[in-house]
Amino acid sequence: MDERIAAGVDLGGTKILSIAATADGRVLGEDRCPTDAAEGPDAVIGRIVASLRRAIDAAGATPESIIGAGISTPGPCDPSRGLVLDAPNLPGWKNVELARIVRAQLGTPTVLEHDAAAACYGECRYGAGIGKRHVVYATLGTGVGGGIVIDGKIYGGASGVAGEIGHMIIEPEGPHCNCGGRGCVEAFASGVAIGREADASIADGRMPLLAELADGGPATAELVLRAAEEGEREARRILERAGHYLGLGLAGVLNSFNPELLILGGGLVNLGSYYIEPAVETMRERALEQVLDGLTVTNAQLGGRAGALGAVALMVDAAD
Amino acid sequence: MDERIAAGVDLGGTKILSIAATADGRVLGEDRCPTDAAEGPDAVIGRIVASLRRAIDAAGATPESIIGAGISTPGPCDPSRGLVLDAPNLPGWKNVELARIVRAQLGTPTVLEHDAAAACYGECRYGAGIGKRHVVYATLGTGVGGGIVIDGKIYGGASGVAGEIGHMIIEPEGPHCNCGGRGCVEAFASGVAIGREADASIADGRMPLLAELADGGPATAELVLRAAEEGEREARRILERAGHYLGLGLAGVLNSFNPELLILGGGLVNLGSYYIEPAVETMRERALEQVLDGLTVTNAQLGGRAGALGAVALMVDAAD
Repeated sequence: MDERIAAGVDLGGTKILSIAATADGRVLGEDRCPTDAAEGPDAVIGRIVASLRRAIDAAGATPESIIGAGISTPGPCDPSRGLVLDAPNLPGWKNVELARIVRAQLGTPTVLEHDAAAACYGECRYGAGIGKRHVVYATLGTGVGGGIVIDGKIYGGASGVAGEIGHMIIEPEGPHCNCGGRGCVEAFASGVAIGREADASIADGRMPLLAELADGGPATAELVLRAAEEGEREARRILERAGHYLGLGLAGVLNSFNPELLILGGGLVNLGSYYIEPAVETMRERALEQVLDGLTVTNAQLGGRAGALGAVALMVDAAD
Repeated sequence: MDERIAAGVDLGGTKILSIAATADGRVLGEDRCPTDAAEGPDAVIGRIVASLRRAIDAAGATPESIIGAGISTPGPCDPSRGLVLDAPNLPGWKNVELARIVRAQLGTPTVLEHDAAAACYGECRYGAGIGKRHVVYATLGTGVGGGIVIDGKIYGGASGVAGEIGHMIIEPEGPHCNCGGRGCVEAFASGVAIGREADASIADGRMPLLAELADGGPATAELVLRAAEEGEREARRILERAGHYLGLGLAGVLNSFNPELLILGGGLVNLGSYYIEPAVETMRERALEQVLDGLTVTNAQLGGRAGALGAVALMVDAAD
């Protein structure tokens, strides 16, 4: 038992989650608040610090009594300099020295990591990946991202961007992707891609049930799932197709990294049999036999807490 | 200067190359002989050992006076057990304890590594990758393979198969691949794929010049290059298309591994402006900006010696 306390915060496009936990991962305090990203970096950083304070307080601790605070951020970042380079879903975030500012405002040491890498590390320390050396974590949600752990440590590559498995190209002339490219895994298999496909099918009159569920608003992956569960064939086809393309991308990831464990996390894991099962099936059809031998595929165990808990673990490491 | 001597042998589908070199990479003795793979593992292993003896002898050394012998093998292997699991181009090679047998016959310590990984390591120690921590080596020849060095060490993944970048899928319904899959990078961009495309074009009467060069035999990448140089447009198109697909695969590799250095090696680098240039162009168009920042792309420096020299370096490491 390691009873030292560290804090971790997961900065997302819509919400901020803060946790105060023991070094061995027991959650003692937690806080959630909206990001309200439109208000810009200064306001958001103020909410990050306030949220961390509430989580630390809920744990019966103070910023002075804890090891420090880890920060999980979306988009490209430079962990070695504590810098958010860019955050596509957070307006105005370019080269923000987030670690330094939080350190100054909260008065504790800080570390910073990319959210998918932090989530992978959180799972490796406290969740589905305990004791595993080579792990790939695929985060399936609004976008498709990845975190890589090699020899028990986060692999960030030369500039901290490694693991962008959502931007492996699986169909050169495929749909346009947020990254500026075409035919990336994310452009087929993300929540946004599923919603876009479904919107097009609604417009074509091919999804009356989903049209009713969406009630004039945009289709989301969750609504497509409901339509699938209620029997709409086109909803099933859309989810299976997205899963199939995800599987093609995962096969390439496996052939490249040859991990012992693949962890599937993010909101879309709830699409289960309509999306994850076809993905795993395609992946197993398409990856090399030697890569599949001895591979374990599992769902994330820490759910939405993986990023914040990974940040906790990284802060604990930095203090050791 | 480290004047200790080690030997290294690169076992290929058609030839065996043995080198005896100093620990800092100076080649003192060298031997080449045909593999004659059809004669089966025992005969080939006999030739490997004889070739190593000749290289060691040419260096003025004896098996007793050297550190040991590293072995670079094609296809899946298990370096930790010195085992060749399979070698698609070597009939009869299944679960061959190559390191143990060579050790017994030659009377020196041995180590064994996958050829692309050994070549990557050779370049990192003695060639284009000196001083680099995160390196991807793409070997472009009969097939397309890859070696990965992370933090200065070979990254083999959970079971020694990591770096199979030739089997990233870039077009789900693309041509069939040797691996049993479809639309892999190798199925578009390898020497075999280029030859197959060209044979089809010859059969269609679209490549009279190449038909003349091939003189009734199969088209090879080298002949396609000659036809391209002599102005045959279809030859240029075939090479550019192969390069384009290679670039799509490399973009995915860069987005996954975020290396600081990409080394291009293997016989097809000689196709230069017709194949490598389109590949690099597509790769730069398609990889993420943050991944391209600070990336260096270079040709291999050790040429056909990379695998054998990598095996030397691995033997030196094992003795340290």
